[in-house]
Amino acid sequence: MAKKKVVLAFSGGLDTSFCCIYLSKDRDLEVHSVIVNTGGFSDEELKTIEERAYALGVASHAVVDETENYYESCIKYLVFGNVLKNATYPLSVSAERVSQATAIANYVKKIGADYVAHGSTGAGNDQVRFDMIFNILIPGVEIITPIRDLKLSREAEIEYLNNHGVEYSAEKARYSINKGIWGTSVGGKETLTSHDTLPEEAWPTQVTSTDSKRIELTFEKGELVALDGEKIKPTAAIQRLQAIAQPYGIGRDIHVGDTIIGIKGRVGFEAAAPVIIIKAHHMLEKHTLTKWQLSWKDQLSSFYGNWLHEGQFHDPIMRNIEAFLTDTQKTVSGKVFVELNPYRFQIIGIESKHDLMSSKFGSYGEMNNAWTGEDVKGFSKIFGNQVMIYHKVNGED
Amino acid sequence: MAKKKVVLAFSGGLDTSFCCIYLSKDRDLEVHSVIVNTGGFSDEELKTIEERAYALGVASHAVVDETENYYESCIKYLVFGNVLKNATYPLSVSAERVSQATAIANYVKKIGADYVAHGSTGAGNDQVRFDMIFNILIPGVEIITPIRDLKLSREAEIEYLNNHGVEYSAEKARYSINKGIWGTSVGGKETLTSHDTLPEEAWPTQVTSTDSKRIELTFEKGELVALDGEKIKPTAAIQRLQAIAQPYGIGRDIHVGDTIIGIKGRVGFEAAAPVIIIKAHHMLEKHTLTKWQLSWKDQLSSFYGNWLHEGQFHDPIMRNIEAFLTDTQKTVSGKVFVELNPYRFQIIGIESKHDLMSSKFGSYGEMNNAWTGEDVKGFSKIFGNQVMIYHKVNGED
Amino acid sequence: MAKKKVVLAFSGGLDTSFCCIYLSKDRDLEVHSVIVNTGGFSDEELKTIEERAYALGVASHAVVDETENYYESCIKYLVFGNVLKNATYPLSVSAERVSQATAIANYVKKIGADYVAHGSTGAGNDQVRFDMIFNILIPGVEIITPIRDLKLSREAEIEYLNNHGVEYSAEKARYSINKGIWGTSVGGKETLTSHDTLPEEAWPTQVTSTDSKRIELTFEKGELVALDGEKIKPTAAIQRLQAIAQPYGIGRDIHVGDTIIGIKGRVGFEAAAPVIIIKAHHMLEKHTLTKWQLSWKDQLSSFYGNWLHEGQFHDPIMRNIEAFLTDTQKTVSGKVFVELNPYRFQIIGIESKHDLMSSKFGSYGEMNNAWTGEDVKGFSKIFGNQVMIYHKVNGED
Amino acid sequence: MAKKKVVLAFSGGLDTSFCCIYLSKDRDLEVHSVIVNTGGFSDEELKTIEERAYALGVASHAVVDETENYYESCIKYLVFGNVLKNATYPLSVSAERVSQATAIANYVKKIGADYVAHGSTGAGNDQVRFDMIFNILIPGVEIITPIRDLKLSREAEIEYLNNHGVEYSAEKARYSINKGIWGTSVGGKETLTSHDTLPEEAWPTQVTSTDSKRIELTFEKGELVALDGEKIKPTAAIQRLQAIAQPYGIGRDIHVGDTIIGIKGRVGFEAAAPVIIIKAHHMLEKHTLTKWQLSWKDQLSSFYGNWLHEGQFHDPIMRNIEAFLTDTQKTVSGKVFVELNPYRFQIIGIESKHDLMSSKFGSYGEMNNAWTGEDVKGFSKIFGNQVMIYHKVNGED
Repeated sequence: MAKKKVVLAFSGGLDTSFCCIYLSKDRDLEVHSVIVNTGGFSDEELKTIEERAYALGVASHAVVDETENYYESCIKYLVFGNVLKNATYPLSVSAERVSQATAIANYVKKIGADYVAHGSTGAGNDQVRFDMIFNILIPGVEIITPIRDLKLSREAEIEYLNNHGVEYSAEKARYSINKGIWGTSVGGKETLTSHDTLPEEAWPTQVTSTDSKRIELTFEKGELVALDGEKIKPTAAIQRLQAIAQPYGIGRDIHVGDTIIGIKGRVGFEAAAPVIIIKAHHMLEKHTLTKWQLSWKDQLSSFYGNWLHEGQFHDPIMRNIEAFLTDTQKTVSGKVFVELNPYRFQIIGIESKHDLMSSKFGSYGEMNNAWTGEDVKGFSKIFGNQVMIYHKVNGED
Repeated sequence: MAKKKVVLAFSGGLDTSFCCIYLSKDRDLEVHSVIVNTGGFSDEELKTIEERAYALGVASHAVVDETENYYESCIKYLVFGNVLKNATYPLSVSAERVSQATAIANYVKKIGADYVAHGSTGAGNDQVRFDMIFNILIPGVEIITPIRDLKLSREAEIEYLNNHGVEYSAEKARYSINKGIWGTSVGGKETLTSHDTLPEEAWPTQVTSTDSKRIELTFEKGELVALDGEKIKPTAAIQRLQAIAQPYGIGRDIHVGDTIIGIKGRVGFEAAAPVIIIKAHHMLEKHTLTKWQLSWKDQLSSFYGNWLHEGQFHDPIMRNIEAFLTDTQKTVSGKVFVELNPYRFQIIGIESKHDLMSSKFGSYGEMNNAWTGEDVKGFSKIFGNQVMIYHKVNGED
Repeated sequence: MAKKKVVLAFSGGLDTSFCCIYLSKDRDLEVHSVIVNTGGFSDEELKTIEERAYALGVASHAVVDETENYYESCIKYLVFGNVLKNATYPLSVSAERVSQATAIANYVKKIGADYVAHGSTGAGNDQVRFDMIFNILIPGVEIITPIRDLKLSREAEIEYLNNHGVEYSAEKARYSINKGIWGTSVGGKETLTSHDTLPEEAWPTQVTSTDSKRIELTFEKGELVALDGEKIKPTAAIQRLQAIAQPYGIGRDIHVGDTIIGIKGRVGFEAAAPVIIIKAHHMLEKHTLTKWQLSWKDQLSSFYGNWLHEGQFHDPIMRNIEAFLTDTQKTVSGKVFVELNPYRFQIIGIESKHDLMSSKFGSYGEMNNAWTGEDVKGFSKIFGNQVMIYHKVNGED
Repeated sequence: MAKKKVVLAFSGGLDTSFCCIYLSKDRDLEVHSVIVNTGGFSDEELKTIEERAYALGVASHAVVDETENYYESCIKYLVFGNVLKNATYPLSVSAERVSQATAIANYVKKIGADYVAHGSTGAGNDQVRFDMIFNILIPGVEIITPIRDLKLSREAEIEYLNNHGVEYSAEKARYSINKGIWGTSVGGKETLTSHDTLPEEAWPTQVTSTDSKRIELTFEKGELVALDGEKIKPTAAIQRLQAIAQPYGIGRDIHVGDTIIGIKGRVGFEAAAPVIIIKAHHMLEKHTLTKWQLSWKDQLSSFYGNWLHEGQFHDPIMRNIEAFLTDTQKTVSGKVFVELNPYRFQIIGIESKHDLMSSKFGSYGEMNNAWTGEDVKGFSKIFGNQVMIYHKVNGED
């Protein structure tokens, strides 16, 4: 009888290497490893991981390139919504995990696997995102999570691998790093405390640019479509801006937030391009949207970011909010001028034909002719009417 | 017959100097000038303004010191709510105007004046704030606004003053500056455009501190009560922090926002202390409040800031929100460590006995014993249940 | 020289009859009267009004039938959003006024008029809706409001008309009634008090149906498309349902709310069809939408209704919210069973292939196999985690 | 060695009777049964349940009367917030369960028990509410849920009881009924469908009052303090109003909503007093609160109700919202006149010295003297300014 198929989300690290052997030897399954690239891996890295997968004896290994799809289905809306969780974090990892889990679920359907496996431990957010998205999209497929279930120590995993003829060095990086197109997270002993920050050497990108540089970002309907006047597709624009700005040390910060499982978590990140794009986009919106568009965008985007963070991307409310956000972007077109300096950047200003501050009908001096001081007097009277009545009726505060 | 009394909000500038003479000579009123200090004036400046008032022939001049009251009734809640309008602006001017208008209304009641006058033009937000708050708090008192009503040019005002024997230099400062305890605004020809930023020399406080410095802020129930361990009342703490941090060029930015009268406005500001305090306070909250406390605080504070900005401080909803905010601060106590560097600052970390990241019952490793991987599996299943059903019932997205 | 053209919003009542003569005789304008039918007028009524217009000497009279457009651009979204202001009022009048003002602005553009006139007094909401929408859509066209400006009494208007050879009876209806497709408002001496309700005889539709009757409403993507299984266009469905249900006395109520100008207002209304449709539609949504779709729909719709009520229909945020609402309706299809009885109705139940309560994959007994009591235990543990930690850290409440 | 103690939430029904024996015989524990009365039980019923407990061999049985505490800590805020889940359901059961679980946790602490047991199955909301509140308030105490864990059928439970010498009739009521002070829920075969409603005979209170009756409710700071002018404590007022109004068949409805575990649920309820109180209270607020107080109350209360429904009463955000709600009630005092008729009621009107519709300074005719038609013109111009500019800048919609 043919072995049953399992799709394994594979990164080439210790945990998923262990899973490869375990699923094949102990569970007697045909292992199909898959890695989803959301813009964080180079071709070389992907090749190394593939070689490792085959060395671990997988039946097949696949690379799914989700970068464009990740942008179209998710990052785009994070920009439209200026999403910075807790006013800080561009959701670098959370958004990526959702995209990866979805791509893996689709791969499971494509090859008709009976099981799906992931290497999450029982401690973090990722297990919830993977479990939940698999439950939602491939409800008949059983989920196997060897690391979580067996609760093995790092040492036990290495010993198990060695026993099965796989070499693995016991050395562990001092900082755990996760790189994607929307930012790189950095965890280490400092981020496990509440009081300490990451040392300079922990940051993946060291500060090597020390001059002052101006760049021009062009947005069309909310999407970044050109850098310094050169048209370029959004994913390439993000990557190019990241290459320019990260060596300035821009977009480094510590995110403190609520995990899906209720505890507080703390993680460092560097995300120069996401942070610059969001702040530039937001500035363009301040000039082109009405007061209530800005206000409701804030509320809906804040929910959108939090719900995405909690892995609930497939709730239809998310599609509804995306329809809202897309509709708000009709006039969010124009240029934004940004100045980069070591460790900081500044939005210099914007230029847009939709700028509500500069009418095509003349300067604001003229537009002021549209109303008079008398009009404002009347406005002030009526605008304060209810509160005036309230105080008359109820006496002083 | 005795002359009728008018209270004039007096700053010593051209517009209110004109008003002094105009109200006395052309309107035949007994002018009682008043200036409300909300922390932006030195004793010397106040003395100069007083002398000018008497030189202009006022019947009396009063200085109302509102600094403590302004803090207690307003700034405190801006800190509790981490209020930065459009994610940027601490409402330096808008909050102050509301406090001043309220103090003037109370002064009008105190001396039993028949009229109240202010020097606002017909172009900005301040006229609405003054008019509305007067309408609400002293509805029987007529408001006189000579500058708005007469639509005089600067030159005509000066000529009028000269004709009445008052000297006034025609020179105008290149940048219009308004200083208060919660920040200083800066307007100039650049802020009238959408694309240009203020030059270095426009900023009232030049950058003279170039080292790196660590400071420690202590909060008790949301209020800043100590700097570097030294107990100090909140208003003094704000002013001391401002004196330390502003020479680093921290907290400089351009605010683009919606005015009360519907147009977009742009203004520069420097507000090192407000921005540092808000970011430090927010970080402490990320550690000590639950997810939904953080979320609702954001929504209510955003409204609170906007409604205050629009001069609606006396709407009873503001008192209701203050009750909410105060209640959320019960556990927002602890220390925040901040590093200052030229043009930027960084929150290093916090320390609090209410920190939800560090239990008094042990480290998080132990606390994880409170639940298992199995629990999270169950959670993931139930947490995704409705969306799973949605997709089953409705098919693919 | 040719006379200048004025478009007059004409209803045939005393105020707009006065305006006809006044604009023509005293202002020397060429009067083009227009009436916008939003479903409240019969052909006969429209004919009578037209005859009256010509009798008053208008240069032209036009009837603009906005019923379908009013439904498509506004009522549809009030249904999608289950909009009942203050949990009571379907916005019968406010929505209609906005539709009428927009249609009149378009008519002004069409015939190239120089002025636009309306008969509003200075007391209510309608003046703001008309003024504002004209300011927004035809900013160059001057608005004339004779009744508001001249502050004439009813008697003075009648005398003026008589003096110009127009007969007008001095009799005034005891109740002021405004009829439209989305409900009929009723004002009278009782609604000017806070404590009294309208007497039975004040209601335009008397209760003549005393039996119990079941009807079936079919919705497709949120729109009412059939009654008792018979396909019919939405506007006809509303009118047919109204004819069936209003004689039961259903949908009568008193709305107490905030006017645009800050005072509280009170008005009776009968709106059987709107109220039944909204409650039936809401019930269908409770079965077909996820928790967060329901929650966000509530918030956005509440704002949508209030902002529409305040005449702000042309704010682009309204288009954005409509995009959101439309997207939520993708699965809101099915039948709703309703029982009518004198003065009340009851939603019996629904039937929908999108019903999240009845899976096409089996009954709920089976679906419960998708999770176990163990899963719920795990869920309960994790779901309460943060609050458990909060109480551990902070001690008892 | 002494047996370990278990506190059992005991109702006297089949499930908790089974638990009594099971915990004692199979688990060898000392069973301390407890029943929490939240206003739904008569003294006679409580006595019968106590006798049953002792007949089942419990070591002790306690009755905790939580009625007043339930009102003070929960119902009061449901009234302040006008909480009707999904615009329908006063949360009759959900609020009660939270109160009961909290009281049981306190009883566990009081007698120093080692375990706590409840009779919930694995199908509903109650298991989550009990589990979670026990996890939060008594985290060290193990929870035992025999019915959920053993998955026994009704028949197997009865057989087990019989085998242990306890008689239990196999008869099952056609409708499952849960009675409390804030309403009675009714479940039956009809509520398991989406299309059918409960028959007349299913309702616990049959319609026996067929006249028309007026009553007067007096509120002080949002609390019901008198009926028809007679002062009475709120819990007594609720119970008296319920006794008067329920025989009219008022407040009967079907709630369709989202359960905590993600599925949709449907349940009938009769809750005459809660529904009348909430609607009367809401009407009083429409007269006494400002626009934004009403709006924010809606949003916060909707969350409060949903979060309570999900058992999250002990999240500190709930205390913060209660502080907000309490603060809004300062002026919510006055009388509300209500007319009861079979199957329906009507709010006739209100009387309050805080009524913003009737100033103590005169009638509204006079108050209109506070502003003019010119003021409204100015208001309309400024209020529509931004949208006017938007349309000028961006052309037509």
